[in-house]
Amino acid sequence: MNFDPSPNSQAYLARLKTFMQAHVYPIEKEILTENHRLNYHGDWRRWRVPAQIRQLKQQAREAGLWNLFLPDNELGQGLSCLEYAPLAEEMGKVSFAPEIFNCNAPDTGNMEVLYHFGDKKQKQTWLEPLLAGEIRSVFAMTEPGVASSDATNMQATIIEEGRKLVLNGTKWWTTGLGHPDAKVAIFMGLSNPENEKHARHAMVIVPLDSEGLEIKRMLTACQDYDAPYGHGELQLTNVKVPKDNLLVGMGKGFAIAQGRLGPGRIHHCMRAIGAAERCLELMIKRGFERVAFGKPVIKLGGNQERVAKARMAIDQARLLTLNAAWKIDTVGVKHAMTEISAIKVVVPNVLQEVSDMAIQMHGGAGVSGDFPLAGFNAAARVLRLADGPDEVHMGMVCRIELAKYQKGA
Amino acid sequence: MNFDPSPNSQAYLARLKTFMQAHVYPIEKEILTENHRLNYHGDWRRWRVPAQIRQLKQQAREAGLWNLFLPDNELGQGLSCLEYAPLAEEMGKVSFAPEIFNCNAPDTGNMEVLYHFGDKKQKQTWLEPLLAGEIRSVFAMTEPGVASSDATNMQATIIEEGRKLVLNGTKWWTTGLGHPDAKVAIFMGLSNPENEKHARHAMVIVPLDSEGLEIKRMLTACQDYDAPYGHGELQLTNVKVPKDNLLVGMGKGFAIAQGRLGPGRIHHCMRAIGAAERCLELMIKRGFERVAFGKPVIKLGGNQERVAKARMAIDQARLLTLNAAWKIDTVGVKHAMTEISAIKVVVPNVLQEVSDMAIQMHGGAGVSGDFPLAGFNAAARVLRLADGPDEVHMGMVCRIELAKYQKGA
Amino acid sequence: MNFDPSPNSQAYLARLKTFMQAHVYPIEKEILTENHRLNYHGDWRRWRVPAQIRQLKQQAREAGLWNLFLPDNELGQGLSCLEYAPLAEEMGKVSFAPEIFNCNAPDTGNMEVLYHFGDKKQKQTWLEPLLAGEIRSVFAMTEPGVASSDATNMQATIIEEGRKLVLNGTKWWTTGLGHPDAKVAIFMGLSNPENEKHARHAMVIVPLDSEGLEIKRMLTACQDYDAPYGHGELQLTNVKVPKDNLLVGMGKGFAIAQGRLGPGRIHHCMRAIGAAERCLELMIKRGFERVAFGKPVIKLGGNQERVAKARMAIDQARLLTLNAAWKIDTVGVKHAMTEISAIKVVVPNVLQEVSDMAIQMHGGAGVSGDFPLAGFNAAARVLRLADGPDEVHMGMVCRIELAKYQKGA
Amino acid sequence: MNFDPSPNSQAYLARLKTFMQAHVYPIEKEILTENHRLNYHGDWRRWRVPAQIRQLKQQAREAGLWNLFLPDNELGQGLSCLEYAPLAEEMGKVSFAPEIFNCNAPDTGNMEVLYHFGDKKQKQTWLEPLLAGEIRSVFAMTEPGVASSDATNMQATIIEEGRKLVLNGTKWWTTGLGHPDAKVAIFMGLSNPENEKHARHAMVIVPLDSEGLEIKRMLTACQDYDAPYGHGELQLTNVKVPKDNLLVGMGKGFAIAQGRLGPGRIHHCMRAIGAAERCLELMIKRGFERVAFGKPVIKLGGNQERVAKARMAIDQARLLTLNAAWKIDTVGVKHAMTEISAIKVVVPNVLQEVSDMAIQMHGGAGVSGDFPLAGFNAAARVLRLADGPDEVHMGMVCRIELAKYQKGA
Repeated sequence: MNFDPSPNSQAYLARLKTFMQAHVYPIEKEILTENHRLNYHGDWRRWRVPAQIRQLKQQAREAGLWNLFLPDNELGQGLSCLEYAPLAEEMGKVSFAPEIFNCNAPDTGNMEVLYHFGDKKQKQTWLEPLLAGEIRSVFAMTEPGVASSDATNMQATIIEEGRKLVLNGTKWWTTGLGHPDAKVAIFMGLSNPENEKHARHAMVIVPLDSEGLEIKRMLTACQDYDAPYGHGELQLTNVKVPKDNLLVGMGKGFAIAQGRLGPGRIHHCMRAIGAAERCLELMIKRGFERVAFGKPVIKLGGNQERVAKARMAIDQARLLTLNAAWKIDTVGVKHAMTEISAIKVVVPNVLQEVSDMAIQMHGGAGVSGDFPLAGFNAAARVLRLADGPDEVHMGMVCRIELAKYQKGA
Repeated sequence: MNFDPSPNSQAYLARLKTFMQAHVYPIEKEILTENHRLNYHGDWRRWRVPAQIRQLKQQAREAGLWNLFLPDNELGQGLSCLEYAPLAEEMGKVSFAPEIFNCNAPDTGNMEVLYHFGDKKQKQTWLEPLLAGEIRSVFAMTEPGVASSDATNMQATIIEEGRKLVLNGTKWWTTGLGHPDAKVAIFMGLSNPENEKHARHAMVIVPLDSEGLEIKRMLTACQDYDAPYGHGELQLTNVKVPKDNLLVGMGKGFAIAQGRLGPGRIHHCMRAIGAAERCLELMIKRGFERVAFGKPVIKLGGNQERVAKARMAIDQARLLTLNAAWKIDTVGVKHAMTEISAIKVVVPNVLQEVSDMAIQMHGGAGVSGDFPLAGFNAAARVLRLADGPDEVHMGMVCRIELAKYQKGA
Repeated sequence: MNFDPSPNSQAYLARLKTFMQAHVYPIEKEILTENHRLNYHGDWRRWRVPAQIRQLKQQAREAGLWNLFLPDNELGQGLSCLEYAPLAEEMGKVSFAPEIFNCNAPDTGNMEVLYHFGDKKQKQTWLEPLLAGEIRSVFAMTEPGVASSDATNMQATIIEEGRKLVLNGTKWWTTGLGHPDAKVAIFMGLSNPENEKHARHAMVIVPLDSEGLEIKRMLTACQDYDAPYGHGELQLTNVKVPKDNLLVGMGKGFAIAQGRLGPGRIHHCMRAIGAAERCLELMIKRGFERVAFGKPVIKLGGNQERVAKARMAIDQARLLTLNAAWKIDTVGVKHAMTEISAIKVVVPNVLQEVSDMAIQMHGGAGVSGDFPLAGFNAAARVLRLADGPDEVHMGMVCRIELAKYQKGA
Repeated sequence: MNFDPSPNSQAYLARLKTFMQAHVYPIEKEILTENHRLNYHGDWRRWRVPAQIRQLKQQAREAGLWNLFLPDNELGQGLSCLEYAPLAEEMGKVSFAPEIFNCNAPDTGNMEVLYHFGDKKQKQTWLEPLLAGEIRSVFAMTEPGVASSDATNMQATIIEEGRKLVLNGTKWWTTGLGHPDAKVAIFMGLSNPENEKHARHAMVIVPLDSEGLEIKRMLTACQDYDAPYGHGELQLTNVKVPKDNLLVGMGKGFAIAQGRLGPGRIHHCMRAIGAAERCLELMIKRGFERVAFGKPVIKLGGNQERVAKARMAIDQARLLTLNAAWKIDTVGVKHAMTEISAIKVVVPNVLQEVSDMAIQMHGGAGVSGDFPLAGFNAAARVLRLADGPDEVHMGMVCRIELAKYQKGA
């Protein structure tokens, strides 16, 4: 349990903070306003990326603050999961910051999949432009017609037909599908129904302009489209892709998914912790600024206890996440299942609670778009479902716990 | 403590339920979709009311299900606060239903103010078209620059100038301001700064087309504009209205506000209870429909406990609200302060919690616009701030409680 | 839903309060101290009832404040469940008060059983001295070897042998078994294993001096013996009683138990509400008395919010319980199952929480024996298990809720 | 943030676990029963230490598992705060285990005070027999007449009179005062009322047989005397001790107290974490053993979620405490104030909650003395008050947090 950030990690963190202070925070409000202006309508075909974000991406890349999540020394910056964790926390403080550093979900997870499981040609075709930030990708797994919390419910199919794979099915909550740069999906479907439960599915790379692939709509998530990313519903009707687009092999989908999940959850959770820190900061500042009944609001009633509760919850959540990252780095995802599931439950709930407290301290301003609080609160709410609902992860934590006592049985 | 619904109330409830079953539920989804299509953009000037709603209003009026909230026998249906409560609950089950029966906030509160405190001409000019559902009104009280939880912070001013009143100030969270039919505001401002705390303010009727009155923008509340109603920010710069527009008298604002609050909170809370019942219903239905790990989701893990917790919380919240209504009817608002403040804290929190549980049971669908859950959750969140934050109401409950022990002191 | 206390109930409440003020509160501390002195040791055979309690019983009986729980006009005071509820609340404010008015569990439940289900001779032999407060009784149902939350687990047996019934089994949590006046048990056991689930058990009256009946020990409940009542473990080895001691008939145990439960839970819950009111009162008084950091403790930090939360929770719990009582009175136990189960979950949890808050406000004194708070907290904790754990009652509430949606299925 | 246990710590932990498995767990129940038999009465003058405990102390000392808490290489085992932490956790699993290893509060804190602040003679006279486990000590700080959460309320006095110090005052919650081996108190009182707030008090060593020192009674804590330790109330009336008994100097009391607090809180919290782990273990085992409604209880309803919640809460609490220990070791108590206050709030609450869940899973057995659960629950409850109530520690956490934003102000 050595969570000390390495000198390398510390150096990157210092540079990242400097960049955020110099270039991001000063125009955060401007960008959010511009994004709202450009994209606050239901027609995702017209969504655009604010020019400032494209500009910041360019600057971040030039500053070497790019692909920080990727452990590879050449393609990324060679940072381990634990080394990257504080960087993800810092990025989490501004909703659109991860994209600036090419570190946003789901592209990070997709790049990891391609990096670890893609063959040379797949990497060349898709990983390279993703690492360059030129295109964006989506991950098509969740389905509308079934309880996706039980992955064996998946109904989409992948069938071999000569040198082609034929894909059918409906997916939703395909995040990023509305983005103007989105070009490719990693699609998961039932490939080998005859196999045992965890060897029935495959993952396939599908260009979004494939014939038979239709984007049906974008979904609102807690009343917002999250434009220009969006959460899409897409239908695949006899979509045909070359067999070369298959990742690893038929029936290997779960194995790939498993490897993808660990670091991804660290990233999600550290960003959520950064968001919670931001909420706490805003909560305190607001509490000092406003006066009611003759005192700064922060001094009234239970507000000081709430500050303490937020601090204690955030600190615990961070330690739990760093511990999970350290275990992933040292013993691997398979031996860190309790830790990885635990953070997936704990951290979004902490963010939901802290952002709720911060909203309350802001009064009406808290639920408005003038502060990032309502957005963080919605992100937390969605995160409690994305990538498995709380209940499924608690089930995993419990199962491992009970197994300690069933060994002899 | 006799909460038995009167025969009259029961009869109205039966008719209301029949109307809802016949005319509203069957097209709820259609109306929400249409409303989204018409109004899901930031430009409130283009917002429109779905034709179906206008049509349903007409039908409801013809069916005599109209102005049910108003205790007057001729202008309303002569129902007491307790008699109206179950009707408000029923209406709360569908987000747009209150408008259909001309029972939606803030118009109900404004009509009550005009009914109780307006003079003959004020009633004729404003109450009549409001009761007819021809125009809509707003209530301009909360201000952006100060902590409005402390009403004495109010900075807007009302100054007499000959036969005119001159109004200045900025207001926000002026709900309904974006509605195409919104024609008039009840505006509260500092009229007599020299008086003691509760005699410093006045309320004035202000037509929205007054010179000097500018609608600056609509605010999102939990990421949504609540179109076509909206929550507006408006600025008054030397707006001049005839003295005839003054309600009751200079310095009488708080007294009016106080009278307005009691029934309004019952309405809000009963609607929230209806919404919570709806969430519980949807939660159970969804839990039966979806299967995971070989069982209907409703049977898994802690889900059954959550159903029980929702039922127990809702039943308590309803009894607390009926009790408050009964006290308002029997001993008056001034002797029901604990009850009125208590429901304002308890009920929105119950709705927030129950809708959160229902969302979780729905998986991704729960945060989408395909179900009314995310909307109810946002409404609960906003309601915890609207009309005084939880903390202010808990302060009131505590103050009354402590006073019981300080009498002798 | 008419919870108005009847004039009769109000009159009794006034007299009861007068009695408590005049005779009980002034010597509460003295009695608790004396009880501690007499009985604070593990040897239950030496437990004695403080003389003051015997004296107060006499006074209460003479004052006609006696057997108030029994709806019978001659044997009790003819009060309905709803009429008795506020009296139970008042008694609950002092731990030993119910005994003074011959209204303490488990005797009340046992007297109800004998009243409703006993034959003439059973009433003469056992009900009469119980109503006179001359003897005490116990209820032997829970067993140590199985999960008694599932009543079908019961292992004790009742076998007919000629004109005798032969009883075997071990019971525990037999409350009151250590009391010097305890003379008789109502014993539940498996009589008809061949029957369907709810017709397998019987209830039998067993004198505690029966041969083969051995009291093995008293259990501590949250570290206290609850002397001189106690919670006993008793073993029955071929205990033989005449068939005349059978209540109603073989296989009728569940039916009797069901009838016993409803009013008993109202009593438990109303007493718990009284205890919670007492905790809140003590909490506020203490909070005013003590000064820290220059202010009365009650004014510090979140303490005022806690007062409000306690008030709101208690008021809701009371309304829920009154509603359950009203339903028992008007439509009967069988149609009030949600209500009866709900209060059994809600009310003890409210008392546990409010007493915990009151303890915290008292500092170290709160966990000491100088205040009744630790006792109330322990009583709440035990009550969450007694008569079915929270989880079983939530299961009942959920089952009824789900059934509303399964009718057509 | 390097919480890796050192090889030395790991070796001690292995030996400690072996000792616990071999000598303590097998007779835990026997010792608790014997202790109950010997000491379950209110007369603390007759309390005795079970022979088995004295025997185990001897064995532990011979095994070199002795004074593990003391960082000194010769007097203790030279373990840092972080190195000792897992040992404290292991000891916390059995209520009486800390005494076996001479690592129980308040002796550990007192020994630390004497070790760090005692002069040669004080060490010889008092530290040596304490380290040898021959005598026991108490810490007399809390007072009954005032809110001790505000230390400046302290009313006991220390006055110089020639070569003597004259002590007056009443103290309570003086833990260990009932123990047959208790010989000495460290007494804190007002010595320099003229000084600024934190230089007004002194600490003095007072033999318990001093003239004028009277033990008035033992208090129950959550209904139990915690015999043979006890929590005493003692009165000092003109108690005279030589000036040599003064620790450090007049007015130095707060400085000493501050130094004492840090490690002591780590110890308390790690023991509480051990207790929580034990509760979780017992909860799962019980849940597997008992069957209800056709399933092991552990598989019913929300029980599996509760197991997960317990695991997640404990893991977070442990990481938070290890982090605090690591900060104490590396930057010192003064720079670890947030961490030290945070664990004091978080950990006892986690134990209170986890033990409550474990109790519920045990049914009636859970609140009985047959399992250590009720004891752990009570210990948690008391710990939320001991050494500062939750609210005071949250106040500290908040104050530090707010100060981050007030620097420039």
